[in-house]
Amino acid sequence: MRIVFFLYEGLTTLDIIGPHDVLSRLPDCEAISVSKDGGPAMADTGVLGLTATHAMGDVDACDVLVVPGGVAGTFAAAADEEILDWIRTVTADATWITSVCTGSLILGAAGLLDGRKATTHWAAMEMLAGYGAEAVTARSVRDGNVITAAGVSAGIDMAIELAATIAGDETAQAIQLGIEYDPAPPFDCGSPAKAGAAIIERAQSVF
Amino acid sequence: MRIVFFLYEGLTTLDIIGPHDVLSRLPDCEAISVSKDGGPAMADTGVLGLTATHAMGDVDACDVLVVPGGVAGTFAAAADEEILDWIRTVTADATWITSVCTGSLILGAAGLLDGRKATTHWAAMEMLAGYGAEAVTARSVRDGNVITAAGVSAGIDMAIELAATIAGDETAQAIQLGIEYDPAPPFDCGSPAKAGAAIIERAQSVF
Repeated sequence: MRIVFFLYEGLTTLDIIGPHDVLSRLPDCEAISVSKDGGPAMADTGVLGLTATHAMGDVDACDVLVVPGGVAGTFAAAADEEILDWIRTVTADATWITSVCTGSLILGAAGLLDGRKATTHWAAMEMLAGYGAEAVTARSVRDGNVITAAGVSAGIDMAIELAATIAGDETAQAIQLGIEYDPAPPFDCGSPAKAGAAIIERAQSVF
Repeated sequence: MRIVFFLYEGLTTLDIIGPHDVLSRLPDCEAISVSKDGGPAMADTGVLGLTATHAMGDVDACDVLVVPGGVAGTFAAAADEEILDWIRTVTADATWITSVCTGSLILGAAGLLDGRKATTHWAAMEMLAGYGAEAVTARSVRDGNVITAAGVSAGIDMAIELAATIAGDETAQAIQLGIEYDPAPPFDCGSPAKAGAAIIERAQSVF
């Protein structure tokens, strides 16, 4: 089973690293990372970048694709016909097509969400419908072979669930224990429904 | 306030990316990434690497240092006198010295945990005492200006708490909402106490 992590300029690194640190640990899988030209992709923060093992031209099929979100870089990727063509090609026979955060906008731009239920970062829910999907508020949404996760950290939950589907509950549990994923968030404000209007407004100014 | 994310060959990427995606969003902070020679550091998975903005030689002071863990690469870093010298220098006047997972073993090797309470990945707790610390089982431990977090994903919780200390609860809450950190782990097995012996054994074979 070949798992592909897609990297592009301006991605949110936690979107892809959450699934990377879960799915790369699956037994009997070949995990690789792909950027447009095989070079590194700078994070939306500008603080560090991610290097790829492959260029898009090296890879024409996969079993699992993971597409991360980001801010401005995501809209550029979702408007890049070379990227969209490659996503359509590489997923033509994929078992699972997945996204985290606004990565679903890229899947939508590639035409992969037409008529499907899907989710994204809470601040992008209205945009998602514009990309042909039926937008659903949920930690992650499965519709056929497409799995879309909510914002940033939701990729960890999505990936552990997918690991269980691929390799069984016990392997997924071993990976969850391995990354000591026993979350203890200091505040109960990780969704708009819990955070309230003042924190929502502040979040929109921080990102 | 200058925040430094330290990168080295063989690190566990989620250890550093969790804090990166929290602390890089703090207002009025300069966040940078540092590797030994300024080049990229490959993940312990071999699937992708992280690029740095600076080499160790470029940076001789910081306000916050974050040191990630890893597997074999961590022991190599903890035995690298150039790295240990740099960590001692760069933290001499630091406000906060932090680690995630087995990153605490590197802090310990640098002599920064002598007589301090500290934590690490559950599988490395016995080793931590060998590096001079008083090993404590907790999601994160603060002792003076040193904060050590438990395994891998614990860096997210640690970083949000630190963000609250640095910039106040409302900013930290806005960042938590921004990364939609409303965790919904599919299993309740993220610590050894919850996982049981069979999953512990399997986790040790997966990593």
